[in-house]
Amino acid sequence: MSQVSPHLPFNPLSRRQILQGSLTLLGLGLAGGTIGLRHLLNQVNSTVKIPEIELNNNPILDNPFNPMTILREFDYGTVKQEKGQRIREFEVTAKSSLLHLNSTLNFITWNLNDRVPGPTLRAKEGEKIRIIFHNEDGHSHTLHFHGTHPSEMDGVTPIRHGKTATYEFEAKPFGVHLYHCHVAPVTRHISKGLYGMFIVDPPSPRPSADEMVMVLGGYDINNQQKNDVYAFNGIPNYYRDYPIPIYQNQLIRLYILNMIEFDPVATFHIHGNMFKVYRTGRSLTPDEETDMITMGTAERHILEFSYQYPGEFMFHPHQDMIAEYGCLGKFKVLES
Amino acid sequence: MSQVSPHLPFNPLSRRQILQGSLTLLGLGLAGGTIGLRHLLNQVNSTVKIPEIELNNNPILDNPFNPMTILREFDYGTVKQEKGQRIREFEVTAKSSLLHLNSTLNFITWNLNDRVPGPTLRAKEGEKIRIIFHNEDGHSHTLHFHGTHPSEMDGVTPIRHGKTATYEFEAKPFGVHLYHCHVAPVTRHISKGLYGMFIVDPPSPRPSADEMVMVLGGYDINNQQKNDVYAFNGIPNYYRDYPIPIYQNQLIRLYILNMIEFDPVATFHIHGNMFKVYRTGRSLTPDEETDMITMGTAERHILEFSYQYPGEFMFHPHQDMIAEYGCLGKFKVLES
Amino acid sequence: MSQVSPHLPFNPLSRRQILQGSLTLLGLGLAGGTIGLRHLLNQVNSTVKIPEIELNNNPILDNPFNPMTILREFDYGTVKQEKGQRIREFEVTAKSSLLHLNSTLNFITWNLNDRVPGPTLRAKEGEKIRIIFHNEDGHSHTLHFHGTHPSEMDGVTPIRHGKTATYEFEAKPFGVHLYHCHVAPVTRHISKGLYGMFIVDPPSPRPSADEMVMVLGGYDINNQQKNDVYAFNGIPNYYRDYPIPIYQNQLIRLYILNMIEFDPVATFHIHGNMFKVYRTGRSLTPDEETDMITMGTAERHILEFSYQYPGEFMFHPHQDMIAEYGCLGKFKVLES
Repeated sequence: MSQVSPHLPFNPLSRRQILQGSLTLLGLGLAGGTIGLRHLLNQVNSTVKIPEIELNNNPILDNPFNPMTILREFDYGTVKQEKGQRIREFEVTAKSSLLHLNSTLNFITWNLNDRVPGPTLRAKEGEKIRIIFHNEDGHSHTLHFHGTHPSEMDGVTPIRHGKTATYEFEAKPFGVHLYHCHVAPVTRHISKGLYGMFIVDPPSPRPSADEMVMVLGGYDINNQQKNDVYAFNGIPNYYRDYPIPIYQNQLIRLYILNMIEFDPVATFHIHGNMFKVYRTGRSLTPDEETDMITMGTAERHILEFSYQYPGEFMFHPHQDMIAEYGCLGKFKVLES
Repeated sequence: MSQVSPHLPFNPLSRRQILQGSLTLLGLGLAGGTIGLRHLLNQVNSTVKIPEIELNNNPILDNPFNPMTILREFDYGTVKQEKGQRIREFEVTAKSSLLHLNSTLNFITWNLNDRVPGPTLRAKEGEKIRIIFHNEDGHSHTLHFHGTHPSEMDGVTPIRHGKTATYEFEAKPFGVHLYHCHVAPVTRHISKGLYGMFIVDPPSPRPSADEMVMVLGGYDINNQQKNDVYAFNGIPNYYRDYPIPIYQNQLIRLYILNMIEFDPVATFHIHGNMFKVYRTGRSLTPDEETDMITMGTAERHILEFSYQYPGEFMFHPHQDMIAEYGCLGKFKVLES
Repeated sequence: MSQVSPHLPFNPLSRRQILQGSLTLLGLGLAGGTIGLRHLLNQVNSTVKIPEIELNNNPILDNPFNPMTILREFDYGTVKQEKGQRIREFEVTAKSSLLHLNSTLNFITWNLNDRVPGPTLRAKEGEKIRIIFHNEDGHSHTLHFHGTHPSEMDGVTPIRHGKTATYEFEAKPFGVHLYHCHVAPVTRHISKGLYGMFIVDPPSPRPSADEMVMVLGGYDINNQQKNDVYAFNGIPNYYRDYPIPIYQNQLIRLYILNMIEFDPVATFHIHGNMFKVYRTGRSLTPDEETDMITMGTAERHILEFSYQYPGEFMFHPHQDMIAEYGCLGKFKVLES
């Protein structure tokens, strides 16, 4: 089950209903009072306006997820009280399924909750969290989290097909972390799609912003230890064909994670602008300002920026081979 | 037209005359009162002494440029007043021409102002600037600038052979930026030579220093997506064969930019010394001190150092394959 | 000769005796009053407890060194008074010898003091140091140091077989540095094993910690410009098979150096924890906190962390190809 605010009661839709429903809900636009993702985000960040998203022009809606939905979707799980203890609980299920990367290219992913990347799990520093991991895939898998936790919760012991494992630990420290399968060959398990972002919010929330998630990934179609196509949030070139609408002069907080295997690093560049970097999200003050960052696999940061000028601006790794094979996107800056 | 100070009138030589003439002018040495590049630099940085450069031992003077000239040459354009508005105007022309990389190896570059890298454009934060871009090459090209600017000025729309485009925006924010052709395949357009540095000075100038520019580039001779030779400022091993004279105990401010395509990163190391790093030049206080920096393509920084001891000291990427194939140079530290 | 404290008289064993003897001395455990490395470390860091190391389960003791010994071994040389001047003197000898990388794979290393990496030389900022370099190998070699020193001491002039060179300079600035052979092809000379760490301590020592050294290296068995196996401190997978014991809640100070040739970068990740990064060791306050760092060849840093939870935790580059081929280790966190 996905909740957007840790403090709000939430409608009792199942996770799957949310995933499917959110396509519609997001489309309801600013006027709608329905509980959509955008609406709930507004409750958290009361001064932030999220542009209306149109999803009806998407030719690959037969995929179980849409990069535009993934972009601003945070899975806060459900909060439970157990024996006087408060616990935030997430459910993550591993499966195999066919993903349509483009009109001619399919790929059998190993995925989490029918998505590549998996759900963006989000908690607050110090909260007790529980991740219930169902392995419905044919291979053994695990969920290994970055961040601090006991050895028994490290997710390096394979969970067999049909089994469920439960990981419990305190969410800490605040920052941008990740999780991924740690079964060998790890490279293969990751590159097939078994990874996602894990955000731990600081005790006092960061300033209001239009928050979004981008995970860079690669697909090695022919198992040659070499990526054939790349993607932001799972689908090659999606944000090139459907630019991300954002508002002029509004703070964007981009949680970015490089999960490209086989390439030693990935860089990230935005056009016509600079961004502030909060390395690993471990600081509340920026570490540097640039428009080019170089990230090893599993590196992740918070990037903050706002666009002064309206219009379209590309973003992509400045390794043009990666950009030209799928990691190319655009912001569409709307006058506010 | 090249001007070295933004506030000084300048002799009315054409850009080409300056490029050719500077070889001589630089050779005039400290005693000369002629308007040479060194002289004008002295006006800007009044306490800085630039060693006399000898260019007469250069066997490849038939190239249209010389890395020793490029090193300390800044193109400040010309300042115009238009309808009460002050504007700094640059002219950049794209062409193809043969470059002699060494005694046996030639390469047809796509270049800007007859140089690889193109001219080091330089302005002050907040100035209105105009870049008049003439495409005299047979292919379509653009100039895409890093830094902040409107979408229409982003330089992603191809400019056809024989056409001229004008880019106008405010130079901001201060720092070390770059420009390059953004026509696909960008990798090819960049690696053929269509790139240069763009320096935006902070409102209050940085302390006086012997300022120099180094752009790392690679040449993929056989179009195999793999560099065959590398160079600082266009010509492989030039500064190995003709070490850069600098004075002992004088601050060096090195603007460095990695434009090597095909390799995921380039590192940079100087011998017998450490340097302070101002990442992307976006700070007036150093971010770190080291003698080894790792840069993705399009990363650029300011490095500051001074040599305590006289003598020769190498500099090179610590990827020895890159160093051994052309990115090797030396400082010759002169007693002051 | 190896000394652990710069201020203590030391037993007059030869360097070779120390290298061999330390295996035994380290094994004496906490109760022993004998002058072992651990004992002397306790004199320096009086509040630090080092777990007892068992070396008797090592099947490759026929190698001239053991990664577990290298881990916490610092070579402080010997302090001499010469003409009223205090000088710290080190001896380093280059040789070729066969190294058993695992049960089936041997490699002829070019090594320093019978180790890959070479000895971790350690001095205090401002001390005069002398490195006496004996080349007993069949090829010409040098010792080139990172850090600040005169041109004549830069170690770029080849020292022939059977010759001895002496490098003398002031140890500065404080930080983590390195030394390596600088004879061309440098890539080959480094990858064969001619490198080591050079630590310069700040004038006021860093806080007490369990200090350890890890040098990442690669072995190109077939001379194909490509690593076949990798290792922390010389032997592939050693710390995977023999986890490093450390105490819970005790500060670990890890001096880390990437000397992997042929791969453009190496990353480093520890499980279940975060570390503070002191880039190039050039600061006394951390630059960032993360669990993932990306290092070009010859980059080195200080990483500080302590484990809150007992148990086993992996560490490895997050480039799984490098981890899976030898750069995989574990900490065994003991209750304190």
